[in-house]
Amino acid sequence: MKNTFGQSLQITIFGESHGPFIGVVLDGLAPGLDVDEDFIRSQLSLRRPSGAISTARVEADEYTLASGVFKNKTTGTPLCILIPNQNTRSEDYDKANRVARPGHADYTAMCKYHGFEDYRGGGHFSGRITAPIVAAGAIAIKALAQKGILIGTHIYKLADISDREFEDLNEDINALNSKAFAVLDETAEGRMQEAILSAAKDADSVGGILETAITGVPEGVGEPWFDTVEGILSHALFSIPGIKGVQFGAGFDKVCRRGSEFNDPIRNDNGSIRTTTNNNGGINGGITNGMPIMIKCAVKPTPSIYREQQSICLNTLENADIAIEGRHDPAIIHRARVVVDSICALTVYDMLSARFGTDWFVG
Amino acid sequence: MKNTFGQSLQITIFGESHGPFIGVVLDGLAPGLDVDEDFIRSQLSLRRPSGAISTARVEADEYTLASGVFKNKTTGTPLCILIPNQNTRSEDYDKANRVARPGHADYTAMCKYHGFEDYRGGGHFSGRITAPIVAAGAIAIKALAQKGILIGTHIYKLADISDREFEDLNEDINALNSKAFAVLDETAEGRMQEAILSAAKDADSVGGILETAITGVPEGVGEPWFDTVEGILSHALFSIPGIKGVQFGAGFDKVCRRGSEFNDPIRNDNGSIRTTTNNNGGINGGITNGMPIMIKCAVKPTPSIYREQQSICLNTLENADIAIEGRHDPAIIHRARVVVDSICALTVYDMLSARFGTDWFVG
Amino acid sequence: MKNTFGQSLQITIFGESHGPFIGVVLDGLAPGLDVDEDFIRSQLSLRRPSGAISTARVEADEYTLASGVFKNKTTGTPLCILIPNQNTRSEDYDKANRVARPGHADYTAMCKYHGFEDYRGGGHFSGRITAPIVAAGAIAIKALAQKGILIGTHIYKLADISDREFEDLNEDINALNSKAFAVLDETAEGRMQEAILSAAKDADSVGGILETAITGVPEGVGEPWFDTVEGILSHALFSIPGIKGVQFGAGFDKVCRRGSEFNDPIRNDNGSIRTTTNNNGGINGGITNGMPIMIKCAVKPTPSIYREQQSICLNTLENADIAIEGRHDPAIIHRARVVVDSICALTVYDMLSARFGTDWFVG
Amino acid sequence: MKNTFGQSLQITIFGESHGPFIGVVLDGLAPGLDVDEDFIRSQLSLRRPSGAISTARVEADEYTLASGVFKNKTTGTPLCILIPNQNTRSEDYDKANRVARPGHADYTAMCKYHGFEDYRGGGHFSGRITAPIVAAGAIAIKALAQKGILIGTHIYKLADISDREFEDLNEDINALNSKAFAVLDETAEGRMQEAILSAAKDADSVGGILETAITGVPEGVGEPWFDTVEGILSHALFSIPGIKGVQFGAGFDKVCRRGSEFNDPIRNDNGSIRTTTNNNGGINGGITNGMPIMIKCAVKPTPSIYREQQSICLNTLENADIAIEGRHDPAIIHRARVVVDSICALTVYDMLSARFGTDWFVG
Repeated sequence: MKNTFGQSLQITIFGESHGPFIGVVLDGLAPGLDVDEDFIRSQLSLRRPSGAISTARVEADEYTLASGVFKNKTTGTPLCILIPNQNTRSEDYDKANRVARPGHADYTAMCKYHGFEDYRGGGHFSGRITAPIVAAGAIAIKALAQKGILIGTHIYKLADISDREFEDLNEDINALNSKAFAVLDETAEGRMQEAILSAAKDADSVGGILETAITGVPEGVGEPWFDTVEGILSHALFSIPGIKGVQFGAGFDKVCRRGSEFNDPIRNDNGSIRTTTNNNGGINGGITNGMPIMIKCAVKPTPSIYREQQSICLNTLENADIAIEGRHDPAIIHRARVVVDSICALTVYDMLSARFGTDWFVG
Repeated sequence: MKNTFGQSLQITIFGESHGPFIGVVLDGLAPGLDVDEDFIRSQLSLRRPSGAISTARVEADEYTLASGVFKNKTTGTPLCILIPNQNTRSEDYDKANRVARPGHADYTAMCKYHGFEDYRGGGHFSGRITAPIVAAGAIAIKALAQKGILIGTHIYKLADISDREFEDLNEDINALNSKAFAVLDETAEGRMQEAILSAAKDADSVGGILETAITGVPEGVGEPWFDTVEGILSHALFSIPGIKGVQFGAGFDKVCRRGSEFNDPIRNDNGSIRTTTNNNGGINGGITNGMPIMIKCAVKPTPSIYREQQSICLNTLENADIAIEGRHDPAIIHRARVVVDSICALTVYDMLSARFGTDWFVG
Repeated sequence: MKNTFGQSLQITIFGESHGPFIGVVLDGLAPGLDVDEDFIRSQLSLRRPSGAISTARVEADEYTLASGVFKNKTTGTPLCILIPNQNTRSEDYDKANRVARPGHADYTAMCKYHGFEDYRGGGHFSGRITAPIVAAGAIAIKALAQKGILIGTHIYKLADISDREFEDLNEDINALNSKAFAVLDETAEGRMQEAILSAAKDADSVGGILETAITGVPEGVGEPWFDTVEGILSHALFSIPGIKGVQFGAGFDKVCRRGSEFNDPIRNDNGSIRTTTNNNGGINGGITNGMPIMIKCAVKPTPSIYREQQSICLNTLENADIAIEGRHDPAIIHRARVVVDSICALTVYDMLSARFGTDWFVG
Repeated sequence: MKNTFGQSLQITIFGESHGPFIGVVLDGLAPGLDVDEDFIRSQLSLRRPSGAISTARVEADEYTLASGVFKNKTTGTPLCILIPNQNTRSEDYDKANRVARPGHADYTAMCKYHGFEDYRGGGHFSGRITAPIVAAGAIAIKALAQKGILIGTHIYKLADISDREFEDLNEDINALNSKAFAVLDETAEGRMQEAILSAAKDADSVGGILETAITGVPEGVGEPWFDTVEGILSHALFSIPGIKGVQFGAGFDKVCRRGSEFNDPIRNDNGSIRTTTNNNGGINGGITNGMPIMIKCAVKPTPSIYREQQSICLNTLENADIAIEGRHDPAIIHRARVVVDSICALTVYDMLSARFGTDWFVG
């Protein structure tokens, strides 16, 4: 399905970094959902670079609701969001002898598209394509919230600095969603930003791990094969540029332990069925058990660095070194966090809509 | 799509642990592929429990090629493989007041299927359903091998015991594929098996990490959004019971490092384009770069343990303790390895067939 | 998706006329549906040839419920139905120099499958593959009936003999569903059977038109683009061997008239919204309007005839004449009728399940 | 999949008649295809109303290539075409007590979207949404032409006036594609236009039958179940507003005849395999046989007529009469013809790309 994802709610993305528009089509939204433009704008601002820790390219991310909205409500027909590209400095990129940027898709794009790809600014591979996903995600996040489903992501680790663990989930989620730099431990924020600036000073970049909590998803959602909640979520999450690992619950952290440690004891807690630990991350046999869905995503360091690196020329395929000029971020993990939230929201919406029907979300 | 996966090659599975048949339908295979029944049987034997480290339930895994094969070649029409269930002791399971097994899908299945699920032996959630996947995978593995694409998986870590790293990939893969217990370091084999037996002695179980290498996949395969190679593979891999984390290349292991360490330098190596490290696991921007695809899967400890655990009764939802009787494995990771190989083979076949057309594999 | 159809309810078929098994996997059925084996058998008997007007090959159509059924109810996991092939006389077909049968898929199969196809008895193209569809359809028909949705098909026209028009739909549907030869006008039955026998006497065959009514489908089901009710139904119906045309409502019969004649006036009929004519066949803008869905299918004459026909040898591609020996029907339209019902039932179930959620049908 | 269609080439549409933009995303195009803007414009002009026989609303159909094009070639990433809505006179439609227009989707849309639909100008159901399909189709038509595949449609019948039959197919197709009013018999053009004007004078509308020929499609394309060429094409074609019937080859016209008349004799014609008649419309067993694909589509008379009709008020559901004011066409069949060509081109491109790989079309 390529640039389309989802079964009952389908998201289709398009656009290149330096083309006229990037955008998204959301198909399968219930009719009558609120389209909260302030919230869309505020979500977009979380993704947008700002300050010393981000790229100098600042986009206004003005968008147009091209279709699917009538009187501030979704119509139930495809909702298209368009974001025009501005502030593009194509001359930065339009060079006769491009050198493949290591860690980027320059070489793989050339192999796949036979040289016809729009390579300017990363083209269709640009992280900028996540802006429409964030705008679309904002609508899904609002719809889920009305059903009591909350999503929040924090920077679990950046370089060697760890945030504190989640405690009261809904409280922590609400706190995170009002922050531009999503950490739970306030002292970690400064240390992480220093680590980013330190990498920048070294003409380098740094990565880390995001942790996401999704609360309020009813039990019994997902499939044993092949559309497990883990499978669907990871499929979508790996689209986010730079994500190289996804785990649910304790994942890699604890799988080498004993079953008696990993299994989550089940209890009837005054009529509600809960587990006393959540190593399985809210999912058993691919299906939600009513506990929070817990996800970790490994986000690699931004591949664009000013340091000189070994590579090849894309024209001649000869060896060539490259020091990437232009504007780029020493870290993207703090911006990727809202993209993870958005992807999770769209995916959870889709699974709920497939399970309970398209009218389940009708306002 | 639930129990069907794939775009150009589609696999559909069906069956319950104690029903008449389990099976698989493979649709989209090229016509004219060899159907090597010795290889199918040998792959099934790798998944089948054996010896002290495995469950006492030994299945012959006799299978029938129900359709899609003519004169020992694939016809190009759906190939169905049936495996009858034998040696089922349903009385082990058919109890009036079932207690949910922690870490299993008993509770989530009841929520999803409203109590109509066939719960005997885990029903449709049973690891036994992976047998048809292995049989189907055998056909894909053979087809890929004829195109120079090899797949091998080793137990990277079990409890606190690590295998050695991959060295010469194709040589290591060939060595692994002739072993019943897939480790590269021969001294690790005994220590891992001891760890399994030690867990068994403690009425417990143990998990670990599998690492898979896929060599020979041409560059330019995969999509930037959403059908990244990572997304497609992880989607399928998370179906394997017990897998709770998937990473590509260095994944979680190295994402907290600097970009200059994580980026893979690119070189023209006598006309072939290679990277000198492979932290990206053979994939950039969701698309293969011609380097080996490297995957790690976190396999949780078998949830079935003889120890007493806290849980609830599925009838009354009251608290109830459970010590799981019957036959179960103290570890499944050594058996899961061939399932991982099979899922990878089917998925890679699918991506190649979508890219290069269904005739690409025609013999 | 090839041999799989449907979004929320998916049907996958497999098998060849002379292989070990033909079968079907139904995935996405609600849990708890009745599996009425008497009804399955009775539906299969409607498809099975019988008497002078049908082929001499009589199949018992014994089937096995291989999975997805527990205590006579659906489990919600894939339901596989297997039908073993018996009474196959492969020697009729296994000839060195096969001549392509005109109107059949012999030549196109060879082009597509490069000669690896199992050509015996039409292989995967055999009308026999519709038997599992009928078995699967029986489950869907029962589930729909419990929701007040009825489906019936009659032979609208055969050769130059017309049945009477539908009158009281539900009454007519019930009458049809108890008949082996589905005509509303009892006098038409004899004349149509004579026309079939007359064609047989001439070593020839004859075709006709089936008309189907589906009553009780709620309004608001279907999509404007591309998953119109017409699009989904026709997509599935054209799979039935021999169907070369599909129309809804007045279709070809009246499109050349004026809008004032074709438009269906809308009335509030004591609180229920109805149209006074039904030229649109219950569908406006791809979406049901609550009126009966009316479908006509053009079923071509059986291509297998004893008369000599011009053709080519599939080995040499040289011109060669053929008089098709063996057992074949002078008409299939009276047997195809239950296949049409089944395909409609599966498709309508799918659309309702996608719209209202998988639990809508839960018993 | 709702507003997305296709497997290897996917088309997604969005927009409402009176919203900011309508548009299309084409995903899966080979990289390096020519994007011929003159041809896109000329195709759009064939769909656009003009003259006395069409609606007074004339749209410039200015479009923007929002993505997927670089240096006048496709990039291989999603190609989005945007068409802004202009000349919208919403006051024509924005009335407190709307009456459902008979034959239109007003009532079904309200049922499906619970009153949240953008009803102005038909909203997402408007025939105007076909403009982006025509723009997208222009790219596919060009790509097919470079592979020797031609598509042409004529008005086979309008009211009681018939065009002549196809004779030399490629010559006739070329002639049709240069005409604004697609008939082969020049004398039929005037008579058909008179019939349209006569209907207009009667405050009425008129429909007819389109016939399409597709030449040059290689043999061996399509699937026996369920993705037959007929199934895929009809699924897409029934999306076109007003199409109520689709047949292939002789379809309804001849199915009541004998097999000896309907079967197409096969001949080796100097090394090329051809049939001497083409009653099967180029398709046997769902798969192309190398002969031209012949399709007929029944296009109902435009439901918008000035005459008074019986209907209901959408607010109160009470009976109410309606005489549709505003601008509308006495016939759309002459404009629908380029939409049929476009849908056929996109669908055939998709099937070829799935069969032969995405690179098959690479320039």
